[in-house]
Amino acid sequence: MTKIAFIGLGAMGLPMAENLRKAGHDVSGYDLSDKARAAFQARGGHVAGSAREAAHDTELLVLMVVNADQAEDVLFTQRTAEALAPDGIVILGATCAPARAEQIAVKLEAMQRGMVDAPVSGGVGGAKSGTLTIMASAPDRTYARAEPYLKTLGSKLVRVGDRAGQGAMVKTINQLLCGVHIAVAAEAMALAEKSGLDTQLLLKIYGESAAASWMLNNRGPRMISDNPEVASAVDIFVKDLGIVLDAGRAAKAPLLLSAVAHQLFVAASGMGLGRADDSQVIEAYRVLSPS
Amino acid sequence: MTKIAFIGLGAMGLPMAENLRKAGHDVSGYDLSDKARAAFQARGGHVAGSAREAAHDTELLVLMVVNADQAEDVLFTQRTAEALAPDGIVILGATCAPARAEQIAVKLEAMQRGMVDAPVSGGVGGAKSGTLTIMASAPDRTYARAEPYLKTLGSKLVRVGDRAGQGAMVKTINQLLCGVHIAVAAEAMALAEKSGLDTQLLLKIYGESAAASWMLNNRGPRMISDNPEVASAVDIFVKDLGIVLDAGRAAKAPLLLSAVAHQLFVAASGMGLGRADDSQVIEAYRVLSPS
Repeated sequence: MTKIAFIGLGAMGLPMAENLRKAGHDVSGYDLSDKARAAFQARGGHVAGSAREAAHDTELLVLMVVNADQAEDVLFTQRTAEALAPDGIVILGATCAPARAEQIAVKLEAMQRGMVDAPVSGGVGGAKSGTLTIMASAPDRTYARAEPYLKTLGSKLVRVGDRAGQGAMVKTINQLLCGVHIAVAAEAMALAEKSGLDTQLLLKIYGESAAASWMLNNRGPRMISDNPEVASAVDIFVKDLGIVLDAGRAAKAPLLLSAVAHQLFVAASGMGLGRADDSQVIEAYRVLSPS
Repeated sequence: MTKIAFIGLGAMGLPMAENLRKAGHDVSGYDLSDKARAAFQARGGHVAGSAREAAHDTELLVLMVVNADQAEDVLFTQRTAEALAPDGIVILGATCAPARAEQIAVKLEAMQRGMVDAPVSGGVGGAKSGTLTIMASAPDRTYARAEPYLKTLGSKLVRVGDRAGQGAMVKTINQLLCGVHIAVAAEAMALAEKSGLDTQLLLKIYGESAAASWMLNNRGPRMISDNPEVASAVDIFVKDLGIVLDAGRAAKAPLLLSAVAHQLFVAASGMGLGRADDSQVIEAYRVLSPS
C-alpha cells in the first residue's frame, strides 16, 4: 500500500484514482472543482485541502489535469512538487506538447523529483475499466518505480522511450492521425452527400474496405446524423491539432495534412460548433459546398 | 451458360474471366497485350482475334481495361459496342471519373446497349477468389440482367444507385479515403522518424488504437522498410487522386485534404518514385525534413 496524491479528478481522473484505491493504495485527491472533489468523496475517497496538502510527504503524484499550463501551475506555482517526499515521482498524464513535457521534467529533476511522461488514450471507458493505452517515457529507475501503478491505470502500457517528451510525442502523433482521419471522413461524406449518394450505405461499404479507419467507423454515423450526441468536442481537436503543429514546427517537420485539418476544425469552431461533437467538422464542408 | 466477351485480361481481368469460365460460361477473351492473351489461352480460355470479334453477337461484354480512354477506344473507336447483340449489356469495371462513366453510358444507350457502372475494389487477391467489392449502378432492368454475372465476379456486390456515374463516384470517394490515409500515415511516420522514435513500436500502438486505418496497418510496415515490395505504385494514386479532384471540381465540392495528398504523390513521382510502392510517398516528407 502506497500513499499516492492524485490531482485532477475529472471525467478521466476520477475513475483512474478509484482504480488506484481499489488496488489498495492510500489515495489523497484534489481538484479545483467543488463538484469533482465531492464526487471523489462520495465514493469514499479522501479529499485534501489543496494539491500541495495532498502531495505532502507522498512518494507518488499522479497529475490528470487538462494541459501543460495547469500541470505547471499545480507543480510549481502551487508548490506541490516541493511538498513531495524527497526523490518523489510525478506521473504526468495530461496531454502536453512534447517540448512542454520535457521542460516540466527538467524543472522537476532540478528539485530531485523524477517524472514519467505518460499521456493516455482510450477515453473515459478505458479509464473506468483500467484498459487505457499509456504511452510512457522515463529514465530506467524512474520508470521501474512507477511501473506497477501505471499497470493499474492502463493494461496497455507501452514504454516508448527513456526521456520525457517522447511519450508526449507519441500521443501527439496519435492525435495527428485521429484528427486528419476525422477531417477526411468529413471530406468524403460531404462529397457523397453533394453527389446524392446513400451515405449510410457508403459507410458500410468503406468500413469493410481498404478505405476504413477507426474514426470513419466511429465518427461516420454521427457525421451523417441530425442530432448526434457529443462524445468529444470540436474544440478538443482545435487544441490537439494545435499541439501537433507546434510539435512539428519545433521539430522543423512540415505537417501539410495536419495543417489543413486544423483549419477545418478552426472553421467549425468559428461557426459556433466548438462544443459540438467533433464529427460536426463536416459542417465546414457543407457551408463551402451546399447540397 | 451465356456467351460472354471479356476485354482486358490483365492482373485483375484474367482471374475474373477465369471465374466466369469456371461458372460454366462461354467466355471469349481479348487483350492488346500478346502476353495477356497467351496467359488466358494457356489456362484453356478462348482468345478472339480482336475485341470486336470477341463481342460479336454476345449479350454481355465485360470491360476490365485501365481507364475511361481505353474503354471508349474499345467500345467506340474499335466499334466493339455495335458488334454486341441488340439489347446487349456492357459491364464497365474500369476505374473512371464519374462524368466519363456517365458519358459512356449515354453513348451506349443511344445504340440501345445497356451499361452497368461497376468499379471494383479488393485487388488481385479478391479478383482470384471472387470476393471483390463491386460498387454497381444501373437502371433496374439492366442491373437485373447483369446481377448473376456480377455475383460470380464479386461476393461483395452492392448496388449503389440506378444510373451510371454513381458507381464511379462511390469508387472515387473510396480512393479519396485510401489516398489521404496513405499520405497521412507518411506524415505521421516521418514525424516519428524525425523525433527518433521506434516507428515499428508506434505502428503497433496506433494500429490497435483510435488512430488506426486499414492503410496505416497495410502500408505502414512497407513505409518504414528499406526495400519494400511494390504492391501498388505511387503513380496509381497520382492518377486516382487526380480523378478524385476532377470529380470534386465537377461537383463544385472543394476537397482540401485530397488536394494536398495529391501534391505529395505528384512530388514522390517527380522524385523518380512513380513506379515505387505507394507507401514511398513518405520520401516527399523525408526530403522536406531530413532526419
